[in-house]
Amino acid sequence: MKIKVLKFGGSSVATVEAIKMSGSIINDWSKKYKIIVVLSAMYGETDRLVKLTKCFSKNPLPREYDIAVSSGETVSCSLMSIYLNSIKIPSKSLMGWQIPINTSSDHGKARIISINNQKLFNELKKFRVLIVPGFQGIDIDNNITTLGRGGSDTSAVAIAASIGSECIIYTDVEGVYTTDPNLVSDAKKIPKISYEEMLELASQGAKVLQTRSVELAMRKKIKLSVRSSIKPSKSGTIITDEDKSLENNTVSGIAYSRDEAKITLSKVLDQPGVSSKIFGPLAKGNINVDMILQNVSQDGKYANLSFTLPRQDIEKALKILKKEKKNIFYKKIQHSVNIAKISVVGVGMRSHAGVAQTLFDTLGSNNINIQLITTSEIKISILINEDYLETAVKSLHKAYNLNK
Amino acid sequence: MKIKVLKFGGSSVATVEAIKMSGSIINDWSKKYKIIVVLSAMYGETDRLVKLTKCFSKNPLPREYDIAVSSGETVSCSLMSIYLNSIKIPSKSLMGWQIPINTSSDHGKARIISINNQKLFNELKKFRVLIVPGFQGIDIDNNITTLGRGGSDTSAVAIAASIGSECIIYTDVEGVYTTDPNLVSDAKKIPKISYEEMLELASQGAKVLQTRSVELAMRKKIKLSVRSSIKPSKSGTIITDEDKSLENNTVSGIAYSRDEAKITLSKVLDQPGVSSKIFGPLAKGNINVDMILQNVSQDGKYANLSFTLPRQDIEKALKILKKEKKNIFYKKIQHSVNIAKISVVGVGMRSHAGVAQTLFDTLGSNNINIQLITTSEIKISILINEDYLETAVKSLHKAYNLNK
Repeated sequence: MKIKVLKFGGSSVATVEAIKMSGSIINDWSKKYKIIVVLSAMYGETDRLVKLTKCFSKNPLPREYDIAVSSGETVSCSLMSIYLNSIKIPSKSLMGWQIPINTSSDHGKARIISINNQKLFNELKKFRVLIVPGFQGIDIDNNITTLGRGGSDTSAVAIAASIGSECIIYTDVEGVYTTDPNLVSDAKKIPKISYEEMLELASQGAKVLQTRSVELAMRKKIKLSVRSSIKPSKSGTIITDEDKSLENNTVSGIAYSRDEAKITLSKVLDQPGVSSKIFGPLAKGNINVDMILQNVSQDGKYANLSFTLPRQDIEKALKILKKEKKNIFYKKIQHSVNIAKISVVGVGMRSHAGVAQTLFDTLGSNNINIQLITTSEIKISILINEDYLETAVKSLHKAYNLNK
Repeated sequence: MKIKVLKFGGSSVATVEAIKMSGSIINDWSKKYKIIVVLSAMYGETDRLVKLTKCFSKNPLPREYDIAVSSGETVSCSLMSIYLNSIKIPSKSLMGWQIPINTSSDHGKARIISINNQKLFNELKKFRVLIVPGFQGIDIDNNITTLGRGGSDTSAVAIAASIGSECIIYTDVEGVYTTDPNLVSDAKKIPKISYEEMLELASQGAKVLQTRSVELAMRKKIKLSVRSSIKPSKSGTIITDEDKSLENNTVSGIAYSRDEAKITLSKVLDQPGVSSKIFGPLAKGNINVDMILQNVSQDGKYANLSFTLPRQDIEKALKILKKEKKNIFYKKIQHSVNIAKISVVGVGMRSHAGVAQTLFDTLGSNNINIQLITTSEIKISILINEDYLETAVKSLHKAYNLNK
């Protein structure tokens, strides 16, 4: 039994017409393969449900919140099954609890523990297409759980991993691009990219795939690709193991994020344990600190410490740090939200020198100041003033020859 | 453990405000009792979902249709639980499959087979309020089923029966009335009514309770009452066993329905088996024939046969009967949709003569022609021209002193 897992995002099931269009893609595939379809909720539906829950509580009980918000996927799956059956494709929807897809009990951000693939195999003997809601599972006590926003990508990859099949993510763009085509008009579609690069791009702001799904595909070696549900004949992007052909590209793509804020603490006492006094309380408040920079003063007694965090958490972080002031000992606290992060990603960096130099030269010649910088083996991330974001991305895109 | 089952209809959970208002009624009851709440979908939501399914198929696959339409109740239950928990009432929603509520596999009109009351008792040890979606259950193969429109009343009564508790139906009217207050302004609320009378009123067009729920309450002797969620302090109507106090009322109420159509077949061959040739095919087409009248012609050879059926089925019925014409042998087929049914109901009819006489006198003096008539022990139903419906109901309401 040859099986493929196809995932359709919210925009690919946004309207009756979109569902039918995605249905005809499924129809085509189902002529040669048994198909498991993973669906998101109809575009806007999850937001509507989230908003409804917030009418009753600022912090809705997570168990009940998951029941409400997961119902969007339930509906889109049943509609798709109604459509496929109406065009004579024997199809059946299976909810998370009916398979089951077992997850941890962390409501709103549950992790998939196991998937009963035997149920999937059995049902595929009887049906050409199974339709499974993304985003939802159940925990050990039969409570409905959700995987967090964008979790449907992860559901699809996890199902593909559980049955050992390929996974195709259908979305509203044609694939993964060298950078955001909305920002840089001559951005190019990347035909093939390594898991590692995709992982860096996804976690650095490229929104085409959820980070966790790429991580999972990489770990389980699942062949993953991204294609357009509007132009299904186009080939899209294949995410795969690093191979030699990929190493020709020094830089594969440039991601960016406006969702950043920076906090600077002046004259922090430079002594052991002070970092944990700062970042401990933030971690407890569920705030993910990203980049960190520490400048030690000349006398070696004080340091200035800057770090970035998600923009939505800035108020909460300031409150926590002001409360901890006596404990941390800093002189002044400053913050900025007018900043953006740019990440240059490529496995070729491992073997090619000069990637950083090109970055410094390009920004320097554009008079753009770098506020913070971090690097990994295949990535350089910088923080700049948000006003220069577009100029920076465009000139870097050109400098790394990504438009060719 | 003293338990009450409270059911709230679609209008009682129509908006955020309505849900909160119903929540405060639950709060009040939960101070003295453990509560099981049964909820409908937010008003309009089931219609929206039904319409969505029809965008994909005129006849949506019943299994998938049930998944889509039952999601409205899922959402209203989770919202109510979020609200109750936010005001510090320990509450938990339990979907049909989580209890489970086991039903037959007749999607769209499933019947409840059993309810795992042990699960309910166990959860009530931990929570003050359980919230259960009406209308939904699961069949033996774990498929989601629905009980048919208005099925939430039946869910509530079935749950009350399974745990041996009272059931209160909260709705947008103050109780059961002697007739429709929208039609007759001096209609009176009935403080107490017998199961049998309520059953006749419900099945004859009084929309306050679903017929099946009354039937079930009667069979299981469940104390059932109807109250207003807008004016919860009002006492409402208690539906109970027939007792002596009830027999004082000759007539308890008058129901009516505009949802009727009549078909007349002329010169049907009057011989054994002809009825089954007519009503057999209609039954196969799922058409419920209600009243039947047969006039044998003078020579005893032919008969004219009239019967009523739901107005929505008229086209289907005509098609079936025209197809069967050769088999049935009739001369002419006529139909009318401009008709209405009025039913006069009262257990007192058993011991009081003259109820029918009053009916004939009242309609006669208003020059209203009776087209068909059927009777049961506690009910007289008549069919009249729809144009005279209001006049007929008003004058009968007065003639039976129901306004006093």
